[in-house]
Amino acid sequence: MNLILITERDFASTSQVVLSDHRAKHIHQVHQAEPGRRLKVGLVNGLMGLGEVTDAIKSGDDYQVSLTVELSQQPPEKLPLTVILALPRPKMLRRTIQNLTSLGVAHLVLINSYRVEKSYWQSPFLHQLDEYVQLGLEQSVDTVPMTIQLEKRFKPFVEDRLPELIQDKRAIVAHPYVSETCPRDIQTPLVLAIGPEGGFIQYEVDKLIDAGFDAVTLGQRIQKVETVLPQLIGRLY
Amino acid sequence: MNLILITERDFASTSQVVLSDHRAKHIHQVHQAEPGRRLKVGLVNGLMGLGEVTDAIKSGDDYQVSLTVELSQQPPEKLPLTVILALPRPKMLRRTIQNLTSLGVAHLVLINSYRVEKSYWQSPFLHQLDEYVQLGLEQSVDTVPMTIQLEKRFKPFVEDRLPELIQDKRAIVAHPYVSETCPRDIQTPLVLAIGPEGGFIQYEVDKLIDAGFDAVTLGQRIQKVETVLPQLIGRLY
Repeated sequence: MNLILITERDFASTSQVVLSDHRAKHIHQVHQAEPGRRLKVGLVNGLMGLGEVTDAIKSGDDYQVSLTVELSQQPPEKLPLTVILALPRPKMLRRTIQNLTSLGVAHLVLINSYRVEKSYWQSPFLHQLDEYVQLGLEQSVDTVPMTIQLEKRFKPFVEDRLPELIQDKRAIVAHPYVSETCPRDIQTPLVLAIGPEGGFIQYEVDKLIDAGFDAVTLGQRIQKVETVLPQLIGRLY
Repeated sequence: MNLILITERDFASTSQVVLSDHRAKHIHQVHQAEPGRRLKVGLVNGLMGLGEVTDAIKSGDDYQVSLTVELSQQPPEKLPLTVILALPRPKMLRRTIQNLTSLGVAHLVLINSYRVEKSYWQSPFLHQLDEYVQLGLEQSVDTVPMTIQLEKRFKPFVEDRLPELIQDKRAIVAHPYVSETCPRDIQTPLVLAIGPEGGFIQYEVDKLIDAGFDAVTLGQRIQKVETVLPQLIGRLY
């Protein structure tokens, strides 16, 4: 982790933080905690800065670290980007959420699609999304969590809730089988929809187009979702 | 696999191909091989097209599939891009090579760097690079392998072989701690250098700058190598 994320609850006094969970263990094991050592620290949904270790205790498997923190730096700006993504298979979920968070995506909607296996929606990993977002913040040195919305039914989502989501925004769906190429360097607010491995079916693409999306392609190469997401984001912003 | 890769050796006659290895097993298990079934087929370093199953036999654990192939389509163009990448840790190697291949990178140079652990160069995975390239071709529907060059010593590579590699090309090194932002949509031939997790050390960046590289950044977010590679390629091409 490139940043130690803290919350208001970790403060023992105005500028003193005491950690005794996995973060304390991490500081001990990876950063060789000792008084005077300085680490990047960020308050969830708040400022970032430095924490200086004032005390580090290890007793058996118990770790404790005290830090004096000084937070004055704004976190990096989020991209004005909402990603709508067909729910990935469970083993890809952690990496996908972590990477989208670290890329600076503001909001993620995980949706159902014809090619999403029903069982994916029962995955216990879906209860760990906050943890995966945290990994992305720790990776990219950011304090503002990407927000996540789950939509288990495609049609009600597209018909009832999507119109508001894309209001006043450009909306595109990445689809290999169209001729319009994906725009570049748009900077403005965007909603980007991406299908599952194997793609959205035509009915789904048509529903998105009806809702106001443009279908665009990156060319004839077929990429994994994990590859195409950062590729698209790199191109768009 | 989105494409069955074949070689000249697989041909039993001018248009008849017989497979009896992992590809035959894959066609049986994933594509429910049966006469008349059509699959995308490509000849390594050659044309792509369709193969129609004429015969499919399963006997115990032995699989055999015969296909009539008709190849008339050019593979997608490679990007005019050479990536120079600090050798990733072994468990990342397969995914990295596969993804760079599927993105269409023409040539990859895996180099040593101060932050690359010595043991990485002893990894048995380094003997499986051809296989990882093949996975990338099968994923992206391409027949032309990305070529790979291994450079175990940083200084001799940069001083002796890099000048020729970057001749008449633009060369950039991605580095988080500079002010110049990464160019966009360059299309022209490019050599792109990317450090290990933790980045190149300053000495290495300086050596690359001396050799003619521009150091550029994608912003203050710190990404994993697996994320930043497609992000950079999406931005550049």
